[in-house]
Amino acid sequence: MAYPHRVKLVDVGPRDGLQNEKEPVPAAVKIELVHRLQDAGLKEIEVTSFVSPKWVPQMADNAEVMAGIRRQPGVRYSVLVPNMKGFEASLASKPDEIVVFGAASEAFSQRNINCSIAESIERFAPVVEAARAKGIHVRGAISVAVGCPYQGEVSPDGVELVARLMKQIGVQHCGVADTIGVGTPRKVQAAMEAALKHYALDDVSGHFHDTYGQALSNTLACLEMGIWQYDASIAGLGGCPYAKGATGNVATEDVVYMLQGMGIETGIDLDKLIDAGKYISDYLKRKPNSRAATALLTKRMNEACAVPS
Amino acid sequence: MAYPHRVKLVDVGPRDGLQNEKEPVPAAVKIELVHRLQDAGLKEIEVTSFVSPKWVPQMADNAEVMAGIRRQPGVRYSVLVPNMKGFEASLASKPDEIVVFGAASEAFSQRNINCSIAESIERFAPVVEAARAKGIHVRGAISVAVGCPYQGEVSPDGVELVARLMKQIGVQHCGVADTIGVGTPRKVQAAMEAALKHYALDDVSGHFHDTYGQALSNTLACLEMGIWQYDASIAGLGGCPYAKGATGNVATEDVVYMLQGMGIETGIDLDKLIDAGKYISDYLKRKPNSRAATALLTKRMNEACAVPS
Repeated sequence: MAYPHRVKLVDVGPRDGLQNEKEPVPAAVKIELVHRLQDAGLKEIEVTSFVSPKWVPQMADNAEVMAGIRRQPGVRYSVLVPNMKGFEASLASKPDEIVVFGAASEAFSQRNINCSIAESIERFAPVVEAARAKGIHVRGAISVAVGCPYQGEVSPDGVELVARLMKQIGVQHCGVADTIGVGTPRKVQAAMEAALKHYALDDVSGHFHDTYGQALSNTLACLEMGIWQYDASIAGLGGCPYAKGATGNVATEDVVYMLQGMGIETGIDLDKLIDAGKYISDYLKRKPNSRAATALLTKRMNEACAVPS
Repeated sequence: MAYPHRVKLVDVGPRDGLQNEKEPVPAAVKIELVHRLQDAGLKEIEVTSFVSPKWVPQMADNAEVMAGIRRQPGVRYSVLVPNMKGFEASLASKPDEIVVFGAASEAFSQRNINCSIAESIERFAPVVEAARAKGIHVRGAISVAVGCPYQGEVSPDGVELVARLMKQIGVQHCGVADTIGVGTPRKVQAAMEAALKHYALDDVSGHFHDTYGQALSNTLACLEMGIWQYDASIAGLGGCPYAKGATGNVATEDVVYMLQGMGIETGIDLDKLIDAGKYISDYLKRKPNSRAATALLTKRMNEACAVPS
């Protein structure tokens, strides 16, 4: 199959990225980041979550952030919800989309959600029903889709199970996430094929972590399957909760650099994207965790310093 | 085309990597690094260069390093030579292979070697002839094969020209190098196709830099063409001379992680490889510039610190 002509990227930095920051990031900074992402051309942004602030204090400002965004027509603003309580709390913020989730590994599900995979999805059924009744799009995320920190390798059967259960309760989109970044091209393709048993090509996306440096090759492997939707995180925000100091979410800048180089349309302005990554990285007092951003920022600096000859 | 079943990696760290270090690395450390690489299963190592120490003082210990290596049967030890003088100086060290080079961009050739592409290859003709007469294998490296710091994009025609000229003078192997790391899958495939007009599949290899994070996706794109030989640099040694602070050579550890995950045989023990990368990184007082190494070293540390429950 030929590569897709265009790719849609979902920037999950404001939620999936910033929820791993130790120091709280002020709502105003998050709002500015969202503005910069949409100005750069992102058409979907995972803004925040409506999870108990006891568990995720970093997202306690969810309503404030959602209320502060100058919404752009054509951009989808999504929020993660863990249950009906979170969903109801999110409603006043008028999300365009909610994200629900399940793990492809029983060990991970038990350790993280204290219930089986099947139970965890079943619990989302009334949330999905309520969201769809209100015309809110429902995205599902399948975590640890190729490897799990507790059980090791995850078979595509785990992904297939979660995809089937999500489809049954009415989840409209199936995101396949290599949460710990251990995937390599063939394994990731097998996980995607499992999801594609229950979801159409237009309703499946990839979410890759660069912990072992594999995110772009995994993306390329999925592009070959025709998959045209991917999550990524500005400046590689997020880190890896299972290997402190290691890289987590793939940087949006790196994905865009590859896609642009391949002539695949993203609608994203790479220069503005680099600026958005620099904005949040400067706030966090570190460098963007993106090789493309690092190289391009270095190039900019060298050009600014160059003496005309 | 199906992926190759096995891949041969050439570790260029001791030469291409360490020649970019500001502080000199003692010969004993270089020798120990070569030993660790061969113990890890590398079957070809680019050890040093016989370039004037005026230009590359980091390699002034070339003869000492070559003399200090405990050679293993089945391992090829190669050295880079810039001209007949360098070739003659290398002979006492009995290299299994010499590396000659040319640029795919006229601008780069003029700026770096002060002559045209055609002249630069022509000058190697007597070196290649002398080497082959002595049964020394001759590898050619085509630099800036997709992009050039002076002229920007490089067309596949530039690669085709150098490959043709190298073939004419008897160079046996054609390595295609994305020296500044700007390549993306389609561009790299086009460069490889240009080289394959003059060289057989078994005589072509890829040399990718991770400056923009693209090295592994470029490798995957070449694996799809059946290309089964790649350069890589332990711990990502090398940096990028055109963007200080940015990443250069792709880390051998990252390539091996991908290939192992894909079930492609490399003959390399990843644990020992990680140790080799840690050895030289510890000496250089920094962390390996490899995401796989960073993640695996973090995992090791966490396991060592884990309290049995």
